[in-house]
Amino acid sequence: MGVVVSLDKAREPKPGLKPLLDLVDKDMKRLNDLILSKAESHVDMIPKLARHLISSGGKRLRPVLTIACAQMCGYDSGDKHIPLAAAVEFMHTATLLHDDVVDESDMRRGKTTARILWGNEASVLVGDYLLGQAFKMQVEVGIMDALSILANAAAIIAEGEVMQLAAANNMETTEDEYLAIIHSKTAALFAAAAELGAVVAGKTERERAALRSYGNNLGLAFQLVDDALDYSGSKELLGKNVGDDFREGKITLPIVLSYRRGNRDERRFWKRTLQDGDVRDGDLEKAAELMKKHDALEDTIKRARHYGDIARDAMALFPDGKHKAALIETINFCVARKH
Amino acid sequence: MGVVVSLDKAREPKPGLKPLLDLVDKDMKRLNDLILSKAESHVDMIPKLARHLISSGGKRLRPVLTIACAQMCGYDSGDKHIPLAAAVEFMHTATLLHDDVVDESDMRRGKTTARILWGNEASVLVGDYLLGQAFKMQVEVGIMDALSILANAAAIIAEGEVMQLAAANNMETTEDEYLAIIHSKTAALFAAAAELGAVVAGKTERERAALRSYGNNLGLAFQLVDDALDYSGSKELLGKNVGDDFREGKITLPIVLSYRRGNRDERRFWKRTLQDGDVRDGDLEKAAELMKKHDALEDTIKRARHYGDIARDAMALFPDGKHKAALIETINFCVARKH
Repeated sequence: MGVVVSLDKAREPKPGLKPLLDLVDKDMKRLNDLILSKAESHVDMIPKLARHLISSGGKRLRPVLTIACAQMCGYDSGDKHIPLAAAVEFMHTATLLHDDVVDESDMRRGKTTARILWGNEASVLVGDYLLGQAFKMQVEVGIMDALSILANAAAIIAEGEVMQLAAANNMETTEDEYLAIIHSKTAALFAAAAELGAVVAGKTERERAALRSYGNNLGLAFQLVDDALDYSGSKELLGKNVGDDFREGKITLPIVLSYRRGNRDERRFWKRTLQDGDVRDGDLEKAAELMKKHDALEDTIKRARHYGDIARDAMALFPDGKHKAALIETINFCVARKH
Repeated sequence: MGVVVSLDKAREPKPGLKPLLDLVDKDMKRLNDLILSKAESHVDMIPKLARHLISSGGKRLRPVLTIACAQMCGYDSGDKHIPLAAAVEFMHTATLLHDDVVDESDMRRGKTTARILWGNEASVLVGDYLLGQAFKMQVEVGIMDALSILANAAAIIAEGEVMQLAAANNMETTEDEYLAIIHSKTAALFAAAAELGAVVAGKTERERAALRSYGNNLGLAFQLVDDALDYSGSKELLGKNVGDDFREGKITLPIVLSYRRGNRDERRFWKRTLQDGDVRDGDLEKAAELMKKHDALEDTIKRARHYGDIARDAMALFPDGKHKAALIETINFCVARKH
């Protein structure tokens, strides 16, 4: 009956989101209530479709960042962080709905995607509705700097999505180009989410810049790990199929590195599968092998650690405390996560 | 060589947009320049796709309303009406891009649609980018009431689009339901565009409500005529195929009236073509015949005149002058237009 636990694991508990979630716990119910109420509409299809994704057990990492950063910055004069956090989550949800249409995805967070259940058309339009609701919530809060941050983020995110679309199936994509894409499509909203915490608390540009940098680099690390997990994760933990990026011809860093480090035969393989879209049985396994051969996944995680380090240093100007500790632990979670 | 001109036509020149366009002429160049510059991006595909639609000779009716209403309200202390008008046009353009994806349209304004040229994916994402840019422009103007009006409109428009999607192929749609759809998907942006003119000029709720009502009813009339033209217009003037709504199973007022006024055989015809989507050669002609039999197009235009009348009366509180006259002439144009 004895279970062998390696000493290593016993000594170092796996980093997790728990410290962060514990801190925001009392605000989370209000956040979730607000999110559900703003997904309402007299048009039946809207709440049905929106709740399918909203209630599907996402990590709510972005709105949690807004709430935690607001708390760390000493915001206690009101509730404005809640609708701002909800607006961030809605912008994220709208992006996911549109993404799944663009990528023709069947699974998300372990569930059939909305576009399969209700159609691409409804997914596009309900995404637009959620963007409109996000915009309304921000206007109701009425902090011009917050509006400005989120308006900028909205345009940059869409720009990143278009960049990604244009880079699809293009094996000549460089690491810099890949970085520009994930900076726009992922890190910009993390940066906005964190900076909003400083803005709502009335902090100066010094704190705003620090949290912007924290969020931006955390977002880069998060996306890099995401892209590695697409080749190494488990379907059960991920809630989606392993190898989706491969089948879609999405050029992520593991691919960029493997291609650049590969020999002529290997490059021919990558071109056939990703550029020409000619994917055969066993190709995903072969791709994983080549990534292993060239340490592509390991080095993708290494890059993630690099951005995680920058995020950690960005926090230096804040006094030590449980919020700072939890936000730093969140970096560790994002880098070490398996889902 | 003699050309016979009917006395009627010679005496009553066709109502047109010219009076309105003449009044806003000096602002139009700045509007167009701003629109083109805000459709820019370092991501190639964005300006290409956006300009395809933006430069395709749309009437720019909505932003023109904002500018003309601002002028009528005596706004002369700045240029804020220009970016607000551009934001209105971008919201409209984003809706068109998403609409064409949802409706699978091939033609718009006499040109192949963006989704055919660059794909559905790019059309969805560039639409999102334009929404983001619209949002940014509004934030830069920084008038909270204007932001509130446009945020509301964004959510309502998307709601209307979803309602329309849910009503597609449903022959039991009532005239009230149809009205609710066009109120949301079309009239809400006309109402916002007109009201912004009063807001930017710092007018009170009295003028705001009047212009909101003018825009709302003008928008209803505009859409009703649009729906009639889809069965009676000429392809050359419309810039799209006659009968598109029919082929898409879109339930518009001409259909609602014909169905309700029809006998059992006719209702069976409408159910086969629109509900079951079983459209055969000659069905469009048969549909047009039935509409003629039941005065469905004529009565759709009659309804448009009704809303046009309300729009006209909404203008009563403004002093007579060339702006008021041009805005009223615009109602006549919208009701009498052939494209």
